[in-house]
Amino acid sequence: MVAAVDLFTEQGYDATTVTEIAERAGVTKSTFFRHFPDKRELLVAGQETLSVLLADGIGAAPADAGPLQAVAAGLERACAEMGPANRELGPRLKAAVAASAELQERDALKSVGLAAAMTAALRARGVPETSAELAAELGVMAFKRGYARWADAAPEVAGGLWEHARDALEELRTAGASLT
Amino acid sequence: MVAAVDLFTEQGYDATTVTEIAERAGVTKSTFFRHFPDKRELLVAGQETLSVLLADGIGAAPADAGPLQAVAAGLERACAEMGPANRELGPRLKAAVAASAELQERDALKSVGLAAAMTAALRARGVPETSAELAAELGVMAFKRGYARWADAAPEVAGGLWEHARDALEELRTAGASLT
Repeated sequence: MVAAVDLFTEQGYDATTVTEIAERAGVTKSTFFRHFPDKRELLVAGQETLSVLLADGIGAAPADAGPLQAVAAGLERACAEMGPANRELGPRLKAAVAASAELQERDALKSVGLAAAMTAALRARGVPETSAELAAELGVMAFKRGYARWADAAPEVAGGLWEHARDALEELRTAGASLT
Repeated sequence: MVAAVDLFTEQGYDATTVTEIAERAGVTKSTFFRHFPDKRELLVAGQETLSVLLADGIGAAPADAGPLQAVAAGLERACAEMGPANRELGPRLKAAVAASAELQERDALKSVGLAAAMTAALRARGVPETSAELAAELGVMAFKRGYARWADAAPEVAGGLWEHARDALEELRTAGASLT
């Protein structure tokens, strides 16, 4: 994944071939294709994993948890899977996305997909539609804002992604409660 | 625009040529190209117009208006430009987007662009970053939800887009104020 993102940044998403990604990653092309039918799948795969983790965490929240508490449980579940390698990917991914219109579109669609997964998990808990969509949207914003801060922090003080996402969600909740 | 969206729905976005769009719309290909360098620009043009209207309305809101009141002023400004032709486009656009991965990505990026335009207009009013991003996100959600309801309503009772967007924004504000 790091190999692919670096290549996208260096020479653009469109110009990067699967052969180059496999070479840089030090795996054979057939190994790469077994996991990812095409280079776009590299990006989709991450989204699906994340969606499942978020939905699992939301579903496993206590029955009396409010929508945002359930979203927090989803974020905590997903963040628990994100380690230093994910943190180091942050700035590279940001540079690659900034350089490619296609990756920007993919990234925007990823947010829509994550919001939809969280909305569905909240609806399954009986949360009304408007509250579910709104809480899911806040969850996506908190994840992105938390991830950006985590990736920007110096390694020795970065801590875990969850702390940053939790703080970001709390800030959004506070701001939302007083919006006029 | 109706001609283009109908063709995207009938035969897919990728398979539709600019020549076919111009023919269906009853204009020459050179007229079409003068306005839209390529078919993707058809979609981008609408987003830019909408962004400008939203930002203008937000900028022109009274100085003492809160972030959501300013967003409402932006929505009212943009909705004032949307007539029956925009309403009729709704279901067609929805069908075309549902049928095309490329249009889904484009549509997701459009929402990001609208939110960014509203965030910038709110920041220019001195709204703090978190509140600005959140209010802009609520504005995009209200616009999309209002538009969907407007497009779904029977023509004789549909009214204007603004009423639907205003109601949707108020619902989101109420839901946001009580999220736990």
